[in-house]
Amino acid sequence: MGKRTRIVILGGGFAGVYTAKALLQQGGDRVEVHLVNRENYLVFQPMLPEVISGSVGIADTTTPIRRFIPRARLHMRDIEGVNLEEQHVVCSPGFRPRPLILPFDHLVIALGNVTDFRGMTGLAEHAMPFKTHGDALALRNHVIRVLEEADAESDSELRTRLLTFVVAGGGFSGVEVIAELHDFVRQASRSYPSVSREQCRFVLLHSRDRILPEVDEKLALYAQNLLRKRGIEITLGARLAAATADNAILADGTKIPTTTLVATVPSHPNPLCDALDLPKDRGRLIVDAHLRVKDQPNVWAMGDCALVPMPPDGSGKESFAPPTAQHAIREARVAASNILATVNGTSLKPFAFKGLGSLCALGHRKGVAQVMGVRLAGMPAWFLWRTVYWSKLPGIQCKVRVGLSWLLDLFLPPDIVQLRVGKSSGINHEHFEPGQAVFEEGDLGDRVYIIIRGSADVERRDDDSGEVTRVAQLEAGQYFGEMALLNRAPRNATVRCVTAMDVLSIEKGEFTSLIAHLDVLRSQFQHTARTRGQTRETEMNPPTLPRE
Amino acid sequence: MGKRTRIVILGGGFAGVYTAKALLQQGGDRVEVHLVNRENYLVFQPMLPEVISGSVGIADTTTPIRRFIPRARLHMRDIEGVNLEEQHVVCSPGFRPRPLILPFDHLVIALGNVTDFRGMTGLAEHAMPFKTHGDALALRNHVIRVLEEADAESDSELRTRLLTFVVAGGGFSGVEVIAELHDFVRQASRSYPSVSREQCRFVLLHSRDRILPEVDEKLALYAQNLLRKRGIEITLGARLAAATADNAILADGTKIPTTTLVATVPSHPNPLCDALDLPKDRGRLIVDAHLRVKDQPNVWAMGDCALVPMPPDGSGKESFAPPTAQHAIREARVAASNILATVNGTSLKPFAFKGLGSLCALGHRKGVAQVMGVRLAGMPAWFLWRTVYWSKLPGIQCKVRVGLSWLLDLFLPPDIVQLRVGKSSGINHEHFEPGQAVFEEGDLGDRVYIIIRGSADVERRDDDSGEVTRVAQLEAGQYFGEMALLNRAPRNATVRCVTAMDVLSIEKGEFTSLIAHLDVLRSQFQHTARTRGQTRETEMNPPTLPRE
Repeated sequence: MGKRTRIVILGGGFAGVYTAKALLQQGGDRVEVHLVNRENYLVFQPMLPEVISGSVGIADTTTPIRRFIPRARLHMRDIEGVNLEEQHVVCSPGFRPRPLILPFDHLVIALGNVTDFRGMTGLAEHAMPFKTHGDALALRNHVIRVLEEADAESDSELRTRLLTFVVAGGGFSGVEVIAELHDFVRQASRSYPSVSREQCRFVLLHSRDRILPEVDEKLALYAQNLLRKRGIEITLGARLAAATADNAILADGTKIPTTTLVATVPSHPNPLCDALDLPKDRGRLIVDAHLRVKDQPNVWAMGDCALVPMPPDGSGKESFAPPTAQHAIREARVAASNILATVNGTSLKPFAFKGLGSLCALGHRKGVAQVMGVRLAGMPAWFLWRTVYWSKLPGIQCKVRVGLSWLLDLFLPPDIVQLRVGKSSGINHEHFEPGQAVFEEGDLGDRVYIIIRGSADVERRDDDSGEVTRVAQLEAGQYFGEMALLNRAPRNATVRCVTAMDVLSIEKGEFTSLIAHLDVLRSQFQHTARTRGQTRETEMNPPTLPRE
Repeated sequence: MGKRTRIVILGGGFAGVYTAKALLQQGGDRVEVHLVNRENYLVFQPMLPEVISGSVGIADTTTPIRRFIPRARLHMRDIEGVNLEEQHVVCSPGFRPRPLILPFDHLVIALGNVTDFRGMTGLAEHAMPFKTHGDALALRNHVIRVLEEADAESDSELRTRLLTFVVAGGGFSGVEVIAELHDFVRQASRSYPSVSREQCRFVLLHSRDRILPEVDEKLALYAQNLLRKRGIEITLGARLAAATADNAILADGTKIPTTTLVATVPSHPNPLCDALDLPKDRGRLIVDAHLRVKDQPNVWAMGDCALVPMPPDGSGKESFAPPTAQHAIREARVAASNILATVNGTSLKPFAFKGLGSLCALGHRKGVAQVMGVRLAGMPAWFLWRTVYWSKLPGIQCKVRVGLSWLLDLFLPPDIVQLRVGKSSGINHEHFEPGQAVFEEGDLGDRVYIIIRGSADVERRDDDSGEVTRVAQLEAGQYFGEMALLNRAPRNATVRCVTAMDVLSIEKGEFTSLIAHLDVLRSQFQHTARTRGQTRETEMNPPTLPRE
């Protein structure tokens, strides 16, 4: 037995984990498999929407990678870079600030794709993605917070906004999310005495003329009717263009007042792929039928970050594998055996899986399915969904937990506990539309804003006449909102956007720490506050910060 | 029927929630009960240590307050202040930056206590508290991260440090935490091929001459022997004095190299109590036997933030109710009926509960118990622990979930999934001891530091001779570490503390956002980096920031 072949796999989704599993099964002691992933678990994506409603438990859809492939070496790190010439991967540091270097004989790239809000105004700031396990937990927590707020809120406009739930994207993921959101909110609202089911609004936005492009028209129409009958609004031909903290804004200018916007549409191959000097098409790595990257003897790619050619279907048209778990798992097996064949000098085999079909759960024990030419709708499709996905859950532990959760879900009400793990970051980007108030006179001062793009008016209302006057204008590079924090007083003016505006906001705690210890910042802010304070009764003249 | 009596309860622990429950049960439609709490759930504290090991599920120990007391009005807010004269409570804002004002006829203060690391150097920065559900999840995630790192680490000193787990405080809480940590790490280590059980070290620090002051000596010695037999080191007469990211430091100067330090000892009544103009003793509110705050007709207090007098035990010595759930629940019932008696003008009754006894779980199906004069140890005590606490779990949902988790725990290995909810804050305080390196030459640059207190040397090693020279000294008010971030290069020098040093550290992402948009900061940092860069080969002369 010669030297072990060292294979480094980037990414711990289905593609990466199943490649590792197949390599270890088929390669035995001849291979050493390293897997780099940010998390130490594999998420069972198809059941992620059920995390929202709690019909599966929070950790049920996750499988520890170490348990699933005990002989692989897992590195819970970020990937900083790949050096193809020197054949090594650079990973982020752990407890010590030293990078981890992993040399490889073969490299497998299975980084998947990421939610991509670039070019869509305000989405990165105010829309919630739905891709990772963290996204699902964040959405669940957000929805519970919204219900808590709505229950206490007396302003009817804000209540409407809080109780409107918008999902953009009518593919499988979007449909399953709106269905689960609907079921959860309707059931949970029983615990909120001031929230009635009738007040809750659910909107699904889809850019084409029917939802579910993954299945044929008849099933899609069935799903559409079913969801509409439940009271879910489906807006077809609608394209999400922008978002603020208060509104979803469509391409035609329509605003939907909401504080919950989930966007499942735009995805882009992992940005790490962009940095690799490898042949790509629209960001995805070009591989041959053997899953080997073009012109690279020892680099393989698969899953959602690669353009995997499908076997010819006789039509002569070239097509590529869709981003589903069933394809990723088959690609993984083919890649693993081809890597071993390359090592052994035997012949490679092409990827030849044609897909088994599609399953979509619609909530309320209904679904649609299109499996090997057969169409199913309603309860049988839902039953098939549960059976198929339950059997595909990796590991016995996962199967037991999900099974029990489903059982409990039959007779227990949904959990409405809002779990918090760690405090969130206090420095955020926010987007505002023209005319929108960032804050109003008399509000509590809880953060400071720095204008990145756009401009705003500072307005003050006369206590006697009630007349509103513009006292100053703010431009990019200027900051505002510091006075209320420095003086621990309510906001002494309203700031209203003139144009669309992007800001960096710093929360009270972080702002206090920074000005306490960064002298240059403290002097600057105190100087501004003094200047603004003195001119308070006459006119406010915001200073411009010195530019380079 | 007259006007409803409006009662506002501060705090959603056992004391607050059970007061609300009793008020609504006994007062019916005559009362309107408002409860203010940061979370929308009640945590079953006695089972919190089991969250570490996963022998109960992550959300099992929580009960949604809305489900438990559906007729109470829950406000998921922070408390900003209490105005006793105008009889209202001011709560933090929700989606809109407006404070919430809650007027009251009667006020119930049940804020509990908080972990208090004041006056203990470095503990706030580097020790983990164990009080809330969030603390338990954070500890669990931390331990999993430590195991992941240890598995990959080749430096044996760092490995030892990673695999040493220290708990300070030998009361019930500390003992249960070390026992659960031990069980979890021992079992989980099977999934980490490079981590052997023998390498893991567990240390319990206690300041007195025996652990478990809550039970009598015989039981405490039994527990001590049992834990020691398992390999847990119990260091008696040891007082934790300070902490860094790398060490627990005792009062006698002993350093225990560890990256996991849990401190269960110091607790202090909630700081909100300090701000109240009410009679206090050592921070706790003074109440009479009726649980009414001294000299206040309509303010009541109980639980861990109040000094509740125990019924006379014949010894003539004055004593106060201990901070346990059994006492809090009885206090709640007494307070509720006294509030209603005040409203109705009937006579009040005193708090007369003497306590049922103590139970402590020791892991491995062992425990100690001292109940109504009877002492139990080992398996029977553990069985009693489970029976009593299971029966006390609030709500059927909680009971079912915990029961099932315990069942699964018998035959499934512990879960090692590290759940992440939200990203953590990028601005932190850190503490270093004299001689400690903040970072070393060649390390990756991942954050910037601002010195709050203390001083450090900047050292550089000559590539040829290997000689180390001091090139500069850094003092409070100065910052360092910006060059590696601005130039995306490894650290070009080592920074080593001369004295003990406290710093504010800002992570790469936050630092990049701040200097991108705050011109004054960018100019300052770029100027410094240029100055330092020019003098790189000769001598580094860190600039002093302008002081006010």
